[in-house]
Amino acid sequence: MEKKLIQFIDGPNLNLLGEREPEIYGSLSLTEIHQKVKTHISEQKYSINVEFFQSNMEGEIVNCIQNSKKTSSGIIINAGGLSHTSVTILDALLAINIPKIEIHLSNLFKREDFRHHSYISKGVNGMICGFGPNSYLLAVDGMMKLL
Amino acid sequence: MEKKLIQFIDGPNLNLLGEREPEIYGSLSLTEIHQKVKTHISEQKYSINVEFFQSNMEGEIVNCIQNSKKTSSGIIINAGGLSHTSVTILDALLAINIPKIEIHLSNLFKREDFRHHSYISKGVNGMICGFGPNSYLLAVDGMMKLL
Amino acid sequence: MEKKLIQFIDGPNLNLLGEREPEIYGSLSLTEIHQKVKTHISEQKYSINVEFFQSNMEGEIVNCIQNSKKTSSGIIINAGGLSHTSVTILDALLAINIPKIEIHLSNLFKREDFRHHSYISKGVNGMICGFGPNSYLLAVDGMMKLL
Amino acid sequence: MEKKLIQFIDGPNLNLLGEREPEIYGSLSLTEIHQKVKTHISEQKYSINVEFFQSNMEGEIVNCIQNSKKTSSGIIINAGGLSHTSVTILDALLAINIPKIEIHLSNLFKREDFRHHSYISKGVNGMICGFGPNSYLLAVDGMMKLL
Amino acid sequence: MEKKLIQFIDGPNLNLLGEREPEIYGSLSLTEIHQKVKTHISEQKYSINVEFFQSNMEGEIVNCIQNSKKTSSGIIINAGGLSHTSVTILDALLAINIPKIEIHLSNLFKREDFRHHSYISKGVNGMICGFGPNSYLLAVDGMMKLL
Amino acid sequence: MEKKLIQFIDGPNLNLLGEREPEIYGSLSLTEIHQKVKTHISEQKYSINVEFFQSNMEGEIVNCIQNSKKTSSGIIINAGGLSHTSVTILDALLAINIPKIEIHLSNLFKREDFRHHSYISKGVNGMICGFGPNSYLLAVDGMMKLL
Amino acid sequence: MEKKLIQFIDGPNLNLLGEREPEIYGSLSLTEIHQKVKTHISEQKYSINVEFFQSNMEGEIVNCIQNSKKTSSGIIINAGGLSHTSVTILDALLAINIPKIEIHLSNLFKREDFRHHSYISKGVNGMICGFGPNSYLLAVDGMMKLL
Amino acid sequence: MEKKLIQFIDGPNLNLLGEREPEIYGSLSLTEIHQKVKTHISEQKYSINVEFFQSNMEGEIVNCIQNSKKTSSGIIINAGGLSHTSVTILDALLAINIPKIEIHLSNLFKREDFRHHSYISKGVNGMICGFGPNSYLLAVDGMMKLL
Amino acid sequence: MEKKLIQFIDGPNLNLLGEREPEIYGSLSLTEIHQKVKTHISEQKYSINVEFFQSNMEGEIVNCIQNSKKTSSGIIINAGGLSHTSVTILDALLAINIPKIEIHLSNLFKREDFRHHSYISKGVNGMICGFGPNSYLLAVDGMMKLL
Amino acid sequence: MEKKLIQFIDGPNLNLLGEREPEIYGSLSLTEIHQKVKTHISEQKYSINVEFFQSNMEGEIVNCIQNSKKTSSGIIINAGGLSHTSVTILDALLAINIPKIEIHLSNLFKREDFRHHSYISKGVNGMICGFGPNSYLLAVDGMMKLL
Amino acid sequence: MEKKLIQFIDGPNLNLLGEREPEIYGSLSLTEIHQKVKTHISEQKYSINVEFFQSNMEGEIVNCIQNSKKTSSGIIINAGGLSHTSVTILDALLAINIPKIEIHLSNLFKREDFRHHSYISKGVNGMICGFGPNSYLLAVDGMMKLL
Amino acid sequence: MEKKLIQFIDGPNLNLLGEREPEIYGSLSLTEIHQKVKTHISEQKYSINVEFFQSNMEGEIVNCIQNSKKTSSGIIINAGGLSHTSVTILDALLAINIPKIEIHLSNLFKREDFRHHSYISKGVNGMICGFGPNSYLLAVDGMMKLL
Repeated sequence: MEKKLIQFIDGPNLNLLGEREPEIYGSLSLTEIHQKVKTHISEQKYSINVEFFQSNMEGEIVNCIQNSKKTSSGIIINAGGLSHTSVTILDALLAINIPKIEIHLSNLFKREDFRHHSYISKGVNGMICGFGPNSYLLAVDGMMKLL
Repeated sequence: MEKKLIQFIDGPNLNLLGEREPEIYGSLSLTEIHQKVKTHISEQKYSINVEFFQSNMEGEIVNCIQNSKKTSSGIIINAGGLSHTSVTILDALLAINIPKIEIHLSNLFKREDFRHHSYISKGVNGMICGFGPNSYLLAVDGMMKLL
Repeated sequence: MEKKLIQFIDGPNLNLLGEREPEIYGSLSLTEIHQKVKTHISEQKYSINVEFFQSNMEGEIVNCIQNSKKTSSGIIINAGGLSHTSVTILDALLAINIPKIEIHLSNLFKREDFRHHSYISKGVNGMICGFGPNSYLLAVDGMMKLL
Repeated sequence: MEKKLIQFIDGPNLNLLGEREPEIYGSLSLTEIHQKVKTHISEQKYSINVEFFQSNMEGEIVNCIQNSKKTSSGIIINAGGLSHTSVTILDALLAINIPKIEIHLSNLFKREDFRHHSYISKGVNGMICGFGPNSYLLAVDGMMKLL
Repeated sequence: MEKKLIQFIDGPNLNLLGEREPEIYGSLSLTEIHQKVKTHISEQKYSINVEFFQSNMEGEIVNCIQNSKKTSSGIIINAGGLSHTSVTILDALLAINIPKIEIHLSNLFKREDFRHHSYISKGVNGMICGFGPNSYLLAVDGMMKLL
Repeated sequence: MEKKLIQFIDGPNLNLLGEREPEIYGSLSLTEIHQKVKTHISEQKYSINVEFFQSNMEGEIVNCIQNSKKTSSGIIINAGGLSHTSVTILDALLAINIPKIEIHLSNLFKREDFRHHSYISKGVNGMICGFGPNSYLLAVDGMMKLL
Repeated sequence: MEKKLIQFIDGPNLNLLGEREPEIYGSLSLTEIHQKVKTHISEQKYSINVEFFQSNMEGEIVNCIQNSKKTSSGIIINAGGLSHTSVTILDALLAINIPKIEIHLSNLFKREDFRHHSYISKGVNGMICGFGPNSYLLAVDGMMKLL
Repeated sequence: MEKKLIQFIDGPNLNLLGEREPEIYGSLSLTEIHQKVKTHISEQKYSINVEFFQSNMEGEIVNCIQNSKKTSSGIIINAGGLSHTSVTILDALLAINIPKIEIHLSNLFKREDFRHHSYISKGVNGMICGFGPNSYLLAVDGMMKLL
Repeated sequence: MEKKLIQFIDGPNLNLLGEREPEIYGSLSLTEIHQKVKTHISEQKYSINVEFFQSNMEGEIVNCIQNSKKTSSGIIINAGGLSHTSVTILDALLAINIPKIEIHLSNLFKREDFRHHSYISKGVNGMICGFGPNSYLLAVDGMMKLL
Repeated sequence: MEKKLIQFIDGPNLNLLGEREPEIYGSLSLTEIHQKVKTHISEQKYSINVEFFQSNMEGEIVNCIQNSKKTSSGIIINAGGLSHTSVTILDALLAINIPKIEIHLSNLFKREDFRHHSYISKGVNGMICGFGPNSYLLAVDGMMKLL
Repeated sequence: MEKKLIQFIDGPNLNLLGEREPEIYGSLSLTEIHQKVKTHISEQKYSINVEFFQSNMEGEIVNCIQNSKKTSSGIIINAGGLSHTSVTILDALLAINIPKIEIHLSNLFKREDFRHHSYISKGVNGMICGFGPNSYLLAVDGMMKLL
Repeated sequence: MEKKLIQFIDGPNLNLLGEREPEIYGSLSLTEIHQKVKTHISEQKYSINVEFFQSNMEGEIVNCIQNSKKTSSGIIINAGGLSHTSVTILDALLAINIPKIEIHLSNLFKREDFRHHSYISKGVNGMICGFGPNSYLLAVDGMMKLL
């Protein structure tokens, strides 16, 4: 039997991880975080595959979410700065009936006011923030329970 | 004499029509709606051509509006979730002096608060919402009167 | 078989059309617009009757909506300035289960802030604004599709 | 000695009770509620007369309140949708020095935001809401204690 | 030559003047104030006629304003509690191109917050408030200068 | 057959009644009010028992509501100052499926702005305020009708 | 017997009248307006003296108000832009128990939002605005009635 | 070597889990959730002890947090309705320098507006919500990574 | 003659003073501050006794305030985080007619926005904040003058 | 050794103390309060000199603060109505690194809403309000501890 | 030695310059403005190179900013309508430690309210607006000083 | 031919430059900045004279602006803290038809919220902020282009 697929989606500027404001976002690159996810899955012996997608384009993220409908069993999304402004990504998430988890590296609620509100939150099952790269691993754990 | 051209622009997630939350958006696909538009034009014997454009990318929609300046006599736009967030599309519409109509399938004013406000509305001649796919046909009728 | 009846309701100050701020509201009188509606119905060969009612009194408009319950198959309402302030008209519309359309001559969203909000919108199927007198004709087209 | 008179005032759309959104407002007509009031008074052996007035017109309600000054010992008012918008009815109530009670069939605080605020409340002695038709009977009990 | 006519319009509850909260509104009845207006005109030898209209009905006030267009050279209006809520009266005033003055007996800005805002103010030439019955006389003086 | 039990809950500072700001809260002590409740029940020949609980502790009130689930058929609650701030009491009320009535001695809507909003109101069937100690008696009458 | 004195106070930028945005403020200079005031007083045979003071300094206006306590029987103040920002002038007016009238040349309520609020209004008996230079004359008339 | 201790803190009404609005909070009792936590720890072979504390009293929760300073290596807190109102619990969390995680069973951002804001969030390292009882297990995983 | 008693009340988390965020709250423990108060009283030769009470429970603080009515001549309260959320403590303070002073160690107005508002302030004679432990001593000085 | 100097600064209208709204501000003149300050210093045997400055001019107060930098060891400021509006005085205070105390005679938090906010508070060490003239004496005590 | 590079970034609709609302944006095309920049650099003998990039796509602008990190010594950005809505561009700017300048052709603060706020401003060193095409030249001057 | 004059106006506390919060405002004194302006003019060979004016008094700044009307060809203003509060300075600027430029040393949009809004901005041609003392030089460059 084929393994289920989890689609990871990383939004704008997350490709800069490791070099961008490391006091907020940590020193790991996105590739290193993705590698940690794979290691975690293998350590936990989760029977799933993962796919990673990063884009700085709101529309490409919408496309990716739409495509996930056919290919994936779950979505884990860190929409970055688009979390606070994109009704369009919310609408794409609402249009898909698979488990969806929102993640953030930092605890948004300790930062600027405009980062306290996320449109994405209204379109997901659960939200995890503030654990740095471990937010990604916890989301995998959470997804396994939702599947 | 050449027929005038009406440019239809459909924004993010409208390509999912028919499968996406049908209790809100109905069961017709976007292609079927576009077909209804063509049938309507032919039934009403309107002497116009129509062009359809759909994109999930804000910037491509801006591009399409800018190009319409040279090619089209009118724009009918359903900007989807971008209606509530895009100053950029508003600016593109303001930059073009042809008749422009905003449409929505659902009655936005009965939905979540953040859907009650549309930047697009400030850049169009008129607005039609709540008639499902018929919003598209009514917009054609309205455009014929504006032309 | 008897034809269905559409009740048109025009609110306060619409009896002044033609003389009142023509740069906003156009130069046709309300009677002339009503005549255009009739002509349009006959041109389109719609099998319906129309009834027109205008009042400057909120309560009389509520009465008219209530009475429509027994006599009419649909309501097309331009509540004028009451759109922005009348919970009472909203309640009357909510109490009636026939198709209801809100219309406005001008595009309210380009005018003063207090005209951007309409209580009426929460009680109707669809809304059409910004087409001048043609808003009335489009509403007839829209009503035919809702019936 | 003559019995004291309590003036009941029912505002817009309350004449539709029994047919209007029964899941919110219940299945009794206004006349049936009024009959219940009379039965309650007689069962409780209250020595009072009651007068009922219903209108969809804000101004007629103001007139009725003004007239109550001479004829009545107390006012029980369900201003319906006007509760949320009418400074004029508030002013009329403030101008009269007899006991006044505001009632509502439904618990307004569980409904739309715009129904959470009532101008009327600032002009009455007490408020009773959420008991359906029994709000009327409780108001009679309350009035007897205020008299 | 015929004298010009000034239409006075008094809104809801002003018919109660003299009995209603005299510490705010003073002890003169509306009739006595109107009599003072006439005396003032005669003392000042102003060559004008005045017409008085009072109503508790928003719609009747709209009607009166509309009619003034043909009969009067100026309007002096105390819209009472409707000042704070009526877009409809504002629209009627905006529709008429004669001098218009808003008056109030009390200084609204010292009272409850909801009395600090007046829609009427946006539709008149000038505003006078806080002089008690003398607001009416000052408005006549002001109107003479506007005519 | 055992009589049904109604649980009265009085929140912080209500134990001070009679001595605390008597111009707002009246001169009866809480014990005297409770005695009036008992007398009223006996006069009205209601076949119910009542239990009284007062606490200045939010948590004890939550406990009492939770316990009522097993012991009582209805709750009548005057949460005092906690009405405006306690999501916790609201949650407790929402967790229990028996009739619940909110009461207040004074008309909150005539007092400071922060007293106009009550979280409790969203968790009860009905609300009664402004009748002084009689609010308690009216609540008993109202409860009898809900049971 | 000595004549009473009315102190006129004109705030910042009013010394520019006649040259400053004449479409809003008219073409008369402040001196010419003051001359009109004197002419008006003499025409009306009012038995009063007037004193004029203009300053661009908030503190000098406060000083002038304070001094008026001893020298004057009434104050007529056009605080210009300070009307919207000066709690200090409000406090000075509140500290003086003589009649005080606020005036403005233009109808502030038709201008930018930040001009709709005046601190000064809370410290005066009455307010007159929108009559251009005639606001000054009407204020003299109003003051005569307050004295 | 002694195992580290994680203090679980459950706030008001969480003792009702299983019976309280199960469509929102699920059908497991708090004891069953706590049992799941223990099973999870043992399955994951985490070398930690856990302590559970539930209270309906804000002050007792503050006490528990304060005491954790000496006894525990980490805090996992579901403050229930107090999350939205308690500055006091926030202050207690801020006063303690051990890892702290906020959890919620439901996705707060899909519920009433007043549940979108949490004071607690400003005092914790990370937040996890929307996974039902699995929020507790994920928090344990998260805590292991923070320790 | 018996000495008068001043009741000191310290709210939640103040028992942590000395260890809690010392850069904000200083390095003295609450006991050491209380000792400073005693020393100050004796140095100043004030003829008063003091009683100290600390609690993390809102309800216990309410109880303590209520009891002070009989035992004390004045209250000095540092309600900590409850200052910003407790209407209940405000109500208790309003119910007692002895001098009351609110104190804070830090200058709240330089901290987070939600610390700028205090309900307590509406129930006290005076407020002192920002002097660290000396706020307590100044409050004693202030109380001596109020007594 | 030279004594340190404390600069007292009193803002607009404080020169009217004793005659201005004595029910709010008390019956002592500013000179008498200053005399009390001197007496208090001498009674307490504080080794400091004081300088008093009063002005109704925002700019002069800014000048005085600037000059204090060189001459004074501390500033005690009652900015009166400027407290609520002057960013300029705040900026001056922020520019000076000596102890600064804000004082007010009345408890601002019991008065009009616009007096609840003070810009000054963000530029001082501590704040004392509500003790009448004693606020000045307490500020001296507080300053002695800050020096 | 190689010359430093300044990256110019022009956002949506700026490619329409010269034809789009010339009364606001002037009559020069973007190419002509860029030519002016080059001329200015050469006239001023600045030893720098410039690169121009225009896009209607938010994501492409983010990409361009990210790439500038390696290639450029400074960024001058006119984000057009995205200035008001894009957290994503702000985040990209915050991630780069080279001098950044925001420019606008028009004075945004004289236009619609939603144009008064710019997210971009929080991510740049300085801002220049309102000088038409000269804003570009001034930004070059400013950049030379920042480098 | 006489050279044109540019009037520089510096508002409150700018006379403290160099000593005041140098991490925000830099270490140059205002005199040194003015000297830099002169050097820059001479280096650029601009054929203009400059005049410098600094005041801590709002009214003196208004006076200076008014006088500039006759003497100057342009105004460059840094109103300091008055930028956020002075309608009066805005009015003075609006009254003068010469080029006007607003400058600030720091990037206001990165500072406290109350510094994000400037009344001055509505009265000038352009705005430059965030370049430290170079904001002054850039303003000269900008002014040369406006002249």
